This record gives sequence, structure tokens and C-alpha cells, in this order.
Amino acid sequence: MAVGDIESTAPVRPIEWADGIVRILDQRRLPRAERYLKARKPEDVAEAIRTLAVRGAPLLGIAAAYGMGLAARRSEARGPRGVLRDLGRAGKRLKASRPTAANISWAVERVIQAGWRAVRSGVPKGSEGADVVRRVVMDEAIRIAFEDEASCEVIGRLGEELLPEKANVLTHCNTGALATGGWGTAQGIIVAAHRAGKDIHAWVDETRPVLQGARLTAWELQRFNVPMTLVSDTAAGSLMASGLVDAILVGADRITENGDVANKVGTYQLAVLATHHAIPFYVAASFSTVDLDTPTGDAVVIEERDPREVTEPLGVPIAPEGTQAYNPAFDVTPAALITAFVTDRGVIRPPFPSSLRRLARRGVGPGEGAGIASEVPA
Amino acid sequence: MAVGDIESTAPVRPIEWADGIVRILDQRRLPRAERYLKARKPEDVAEAIRTLAVRGAPLLGIAAAYGMGLAARRSEARGPRGVLRDLGRAGKRLKASRPTAANISWAVERVIQAGWRAVRSGVPKGSEGADVVRRVVMDEAIRIAFEDEASCEVIGRLGEELLPEKANVLTHCNTGALATGGWGTAQGIIVAAHRAGKDIHAWVDETRPVLQGARLTAWELQRFNVPMTLVSDTAAGSLMASGLVDAILVGADRITENGDVANKVGTYQLAVLATHHAIPFYVAASFSTVDLDTPTGDAVVIEERDPREVTEPLGVPIAPEGTQAYNPAFDVTPAALITAFVTDRGVIRPPFPSSLRRLARRGVGPGEGAGIASEVPA
Repeated sequence: MAVGDIESTAPVRPIEWADGIVRILDQRRLPRAERYLKARKPEDVAEAIRTLAVRGAPLLGIAAAYGMGLAARRSEARGPRGVLRDLGRAGKRLKASRPTAANISWAVERVIQAGWRAVRSGVPKGSEGADVVRRVVMDEAIRIAFEDEASCEVIGRLGEELLPEKANVLTHCNTGALATGGWGTAQGIIVAAHRAGKDIHAWVDETRPVLQGARLTAWELQRFNVPMTLVSDTAAGSLMASGLVDAILVGADRITENGDVANKVGTYQLAVLATHHAIPFYVAASFSTVDLDTPTGDAVVIEERDPREVTEPLGVPIAPEGTQAYNPAFDVTPAALITAFVTDRGVIRPPFPSSLRRLARRGVGPGEGAGIASEVPA
Repeated sequence: MAVGDIESTAPVRPIEWADGIVRILDQRRLPRAERYLKARKPEDVAEAIRTLAVRGAPLLGIAAAYGMGLAARRSEARGPRGVLRDLGRAGKRLKASRPTAANISWAVERVIQAGWRAVRSGVPKGSEGADVVRRVVMDEAIRIAFEDEASCEVIGRLGEELLPEKANVLTHCNTGALATGGWGTAQGIIVAAHRAGKDIHAWVDETRPVLQGARLTAWELQRFNVPMTLVSDTAAGSLMASGLVDAILVGADRITENGDVANKVGTYQLAVLATHHAIPFYVAASFSTVDLDTPTGDAVVIEERDPREVTEPLGVPIAPEGTQAYNPAFDVTPAALITAFVTDRGVIRPPFPSSLRRLARRGVGPGEGAGIASEVPA
């Protein structure tokens, strides 16, 4: 694919393919330690996903794709269809590792489809054909990673234009280089606006329970010298009431057909607060996060995680022993609370269902009609 | 004062006067350790308040009153006016320890006024008169503590009637026995409803940054066998959207003349969310929290605390070194978002300014006209 004027080096490399090993930055240990895990089997990748060593919707897609690459490489099948069977098994395991993230299934399916396309278009029988499928799968995984880098670049460019010359922007969770194959989605917009010379200050929500904002977003924004201030999740509302928030930018783990958004828990209440204070609420995501097969947010399975993330943050017990806790990892923001989507296929404004469907049909290309406010420049 | 049918033993004793020493349960160490501080000087009490060893709006009033008791006892003045001068100095220090809490100044002023009343109504000169003032001050401090216990009882009784037979109630921070001289305000209502046989389940917000919900409310509710579930502050909105919250109950640190409420940071956004979801939002507080001299919430000084409460929760550094954080301890909820106040002088519904003024003028007594929906039974 054409990467055009995209910067060749991403700011952080949270995941890398290196000669049959997937090197994964262990984000659970950030910001205190930069340690890497080495995944040699697809199961290792699934485990890294499940335990949050690697996280962030787009990056999960890349991780899953690399996991499929490992599955192809390790497959002992003697023919192309055998490799595809092994890939199917690995894909199931990867999809189950985090049920809410659309990008995992999207990447798994895309890699499998690439393999099937090769088989259908004719490959040799036996081990020679198996090798072709292995290569096709690896190529597709690497293409997914490159495309995400390009997607971040476009999202940053389009989103940056939505921000005024001087802005206080509130963001939730981490949607930066640690969450994607490039500069990030929502956070990529903040960085892009800063680099474009705008006077941008970010309010970073700490994002309980896993504290991705405090640990990861703060770490990244400081590295890129973007002015920022960390706040408790409880302070977001009063910041808005004080007129200290000009825009809210979040990412997405799944966008359903009607424009509802599943994202990190806490996103929904920020959207309600944004509406109450008439603050623009933007959702930035690669189009691969759009899941047209899920009609509305009601149908999204919300992953419930270990209650100890709530009762024992960072491994320190805070609640009394035996305290029952409920720990949904995500919530659903209805389309009606969203000002616009910033995607790699353009900025999308309401009404969402029609515009999402049209963009999905057309792929990257000039926009048409309802809902599409601006497009990827030619 | 008449304590009537009030249970003689409170469930927890977060503060006690014992022969010239104020014994303070160090709430910073809960739930992991039950340790007591011994305050011998008013400065010790001010320090315990400042460092959050003792907290909770009504309890701060009691602590300040006991601090004044220590000041009176330790005063070396040889006459009644000299004792009052020493009390004035101690009062200033106590008021400065936490600027947002109305109850501290209220208690300090009340104790000083009691002393002055005694002097004006005639006390002997010299050390004999000084002793009278000392005794009057101590009596007043103890009266404040007893009255708060009675106040909690009334609030629990009146508030409990507002809850349905079966209810999921969300509460923020800690407003229980650890925050008051009795069973609590907002939390006292939950406990009262549970004891009245209602099927009550509490959602306990962890309440970042100091985690009073996770540490203190969870500890108390488990002790009293009230069914409860702890959640991150980020999960409150989606619980409401899922129909899992029937009422929200919070306390108050200051209620201004127009009915605006300063309370623990995070309260405001819960009130906005409650309005969005048409969930009743009740503020429970002793009438001593009402500050008619402050016209609206805009005039309330919001205490900003050490940013390390955000960057290093429980002393564990989470954000990268050098991360700037903003840490307001309170926020202001406008009167328009409040369904009703539950006070020891009755349940008060809008319009608030008129009803607050009338109740303040009349003191405890039968209600009249606008805004007062129910009253303290005779």
C-alpha cells in the first residue's frame, strides 16, 4: 500500500514482528518500566491481549493479525487448506481474548479471507501451497499494521482541523501510539494539533480502573511535549461546568451500524456531560472499528473484567476483604450524543447509519451526500 | 438535649472526647488498620482535619468543636475574656484547616457564641469565671456531637420513607458513621431503609482520588450487612443507562442560600447524569450545613489538594514523574439538579431559597408552605 508522506518512524513501537517472534511492549508495567514480552505462539498473543499487556482497539487488531501470522508460521499442515484450518482455530482463540473489541475479529477475518482468496485463485498442492498461504497471511498482517499507521495520519489531519487555534481538549483512556500502529486516533488528533502549532492543552482523565490515562496517555503526551494536566475521572464534570473544556475526543472499540459506540467505561458519562454543557464530543477511529453487522449498541457484549481491578488497583488492596465489585470494561454511547466521527474515510456527521453504510460500500473515496462533512483529501 | 429513642451506641466511634484528650480514628489507614490518634492541642485536631485523618462534613463540625474544647481547657488565661481570646485564635486555625466545609466554621462560631453568652449573662471575674467559660465551651462541644447523632436519626427516618420497598441506591464518598456523630446522612438513609426491612442494594462509587467509597463506605456497609457493590466512578453513568439505579443519595459540605451544594468532587457529574436519566437525586445533610451567608455556589471556595492524591494514589506512583495534576476536592451542584434535601428539619423540595430561609428562621418545628414536603414528626 502507498504510505505517501507518512512519517516512517512511529513514536513508540508497542508491537513488532521480528523473524517469527512478536515483540510486545508490556503496557501493564508502564510508565515505570519498559519491558517487552516475546510471543512465539498465537496463544501467547491471546494471553497478552487478555491480560492487557497489549491494549487499544487498533493495536488489538494488529496484535491479532500478528498472532495469526504466528499461527500460520507454526502450522505443521502439509497443504494450504490445513494451514487455513489451523488459522481458524487460532482465530477463535484470539477473538475470545477480548469480546468487545471489533478490531480483533475484523483482523482475524481479514487474514483468513486473504488466505482463502489465495487458495481460490489457485495455489500449488502440498507443502508448496501451504507456504504460499503462510506468506499471504504474513503479508496481510503486516499490511494491517501499515494501514493503521496511515489511518492514524489521516485521522490526525482531519481531526486537527476541527479544533480551534486555542483549545482545552479532554480525553479518556489511551488512544495514542501505544494503542495503534501510528500516532493514535483521538490522541493522535491532539498531537497533530499541537504539531500544527495550535495552542492545545489536554485534560487527561486518569481512567479508572486500569488507569490508562494516568499511566499511558500522560507518559506519551509528556514524551511529545504536549501541555497536559491529569485529573481524576470525578473532576471531568466540574471542569466542563467551569468552561475549561472546548472539545472531548475519545476512541472507539466498536461502532455499530446506527453509530452507537462501545468504548472504555466512562466514555458514556462524558458524552452525557458534553451534551449537557454543549461541548463537541468527537469519536476518532479507523473505519475498521465500524461493525455493520451489529445493528445497535444494545447488541454489544460488554466485557466484565476481574473485580480486583477495582478493589486492588495496581495490586494494592483498598477495599475491605470480601468486597463485591462490578467491573464492566466498556460502556455504550448512543449515536445521538456524538457530534461527529473522525475516521480515515472522512469526518462523519449525523445522520450516521446512512453515511456509515455508504462509506463502507465505497471504501476510501470521494464522499457523497448525507452525513459526510469532509473527506480524505485526494 | 433530648435524644429520645435514639440508639445509645453509634456503630463506629470515629471521634471521642476522653478526659482532655480527643481520640481520633485515623481514617487514612482504613480499612486495613484501626488506629487512633490522640489530640491534646487544638493544633493536633487542625492537623488531623487537614490531613484527612478525620473527614466527613458533620464529623468535621464535631472535631472542630472538640478542638475548641481542648483550646479552652489548655488556655492559661486568668479570666473569662482571656479564655475567649484564646478560643478565637484556635478557631481561626481550625477554620483554615479545610476551607470548603461549612460545619467547621459553624461549630467554631457556635462554641464561641456559647462562651460569650455566658460572659454577657454574668460570670465571676478571674479564674473562677475562666472556669465557667471552659465548662460552657466543653458542654457546647458535647452538645454538638449529641445533636448530630440525633440529626442523623431524623435524616435516616425521613430519607428512608423516600425510597421504594426495593431499590438500587447509588452513593458517593462516605457519609456514614465515619463521617458523622451517628449513623450518617446519605448513608444513614441507606442503613435505615435496610433496617426497616426494605430490599436495598447500594452501588458504592469508589470516589477518587481519596477513595472514601472503596475504603470507608464499603467497610461500613459490610459491617452493617447492607448488600452493596463497589464500582469505579467511571461506571456510574452506564449503570444509570441500564436502569440499575433508582435513586442517588449524597451528602453535602456546604449548602448555599439558593440551594447549591458543595460536596465531594464527582457529585456534580452524578447530578447531571441523574437529571439525564430522570433519577431522583437527594442531598442529605444536617441543617448546620446550610450557609445562608453564601448566596450561591459560585461564591464557595473550592479547596485544591495535593496533586499527589491523583498521581500517587495510596502512595503508589502511577503517573510518570513530573506529571502535572489538578486536584479539586469538591465541586458545586446547582440547586436545579437536586430533587430534594433531606435534613433534620424536614424534607425540602424546590423552590429552595425560600424554604431554606424559613426553616433557618424557625428552627426545628412544624413546616409551613412552599417547598417543605414533610416535616420532623412531633
